[in-house]
Amino acid sequence: MNKQTSSFKRSPCPVACTLDIVGDKWTLLIIRDLFSGKKTYSEFQASPEKFPSNILANRLKRLVENNIISKTPYQTNPPRYAYSLTDKGKDLGSVLKSMVSWGEKHVHGSKAMMKNKTP
Amino acid sequence: MNKQTSSFKRSPCPVACTLDIVGDKWTLLIIRDLFSGKKTYSEFQASPEKFPSNILANRLKRLVENNIISKTPYQTNPPRYAYSLTDKGKDLGSVLKSMVSWGEKHVHGSKAMMKNKTP
Repeated sequence: MNKQTSSFKRSPCPVACTLDIVGDKWTLLIIRDLFSGKKTYSEFQASPEKFPSNILANRLKRLVENNIISKTPYQTNPPRYAYSLTDKGKDLGSVLKSMVSWGEKHVHGSKAMMKNKTP
Repeated sequence: MNKQTSSFKRSPCPVACTLDIVGDKWTLLIIRDLFSGKKTYSEFQASPEKFPSNILANRLKRLVENNIISKTPYQTNPPRYAYSLTDKGKDLGSVLKSMVSWGEKHVHGSKAMMKNKTP
C-alpha cells in the first residue's frame, strides 16, 4: 500500500496526478494547438501566446515521454518532427472543453479561437 | 478592438485566460479542497500534497483577487479566515471533474479522494 502511494509524485489524487503532467500555463495550449490542426514546432511558435522556445521544447519532450503526444520525423537534414495527439492526449479534450466554457463565461471578452480553426 | 485584446494577459483564448488564473500545479488543488469541505489555511496545509506555505498564501490571495473564493474572518486575534467558493469558483467543478476522469483513466493507481470526503 505504501509502496503504491510512493509511486505518485505528490498523492494518488487524480487531480494532483493530472496537474503533475499538465499543471502549468503552457502545456494545455500545445494540446489545444494540436486539436486545432497544428503539427510542427514552428506552427506552435506562431501561436498568439508566444511560447518561450525553451518552454516549448521542454513541454513537447515531456508530453512525448508521457505518451500524450507522439512525434514523427518529416525531414532529416536538419531533423524536423510532426507531432500528433495519442488517444491519451485526445482524452484531454474534455479538460480543454471545460476550460473553454469557464473562460468564455467568466473572462470578459474571452473568445474561443479553436472553433474557427478546427475542421 | 486592439484595446480589448490588450486587456488579456496572453490572448483572448478562453483556455489561455483560464490558465492565466489556474494554470499551475497547486491552484486547482485548493479548489478541490474547498469542494471537499475544507475551509481554513491549516486544513489546506494538512492535504497530502503538502502545499509549500508561501505558495498556499500566494494562491489564496490570487483566488480572492479573482473572485473565485471569498474569505471571512472567524477569529480576530490572531486574525484567521475561512475561505469558500464563489459561484465563479464553483464553476471550476467541471474542470476538476474532467481531470478526475482523465487521471483515473490514465494514471495507474490514481484514485479520487474527493468521493470519500464530500458530503
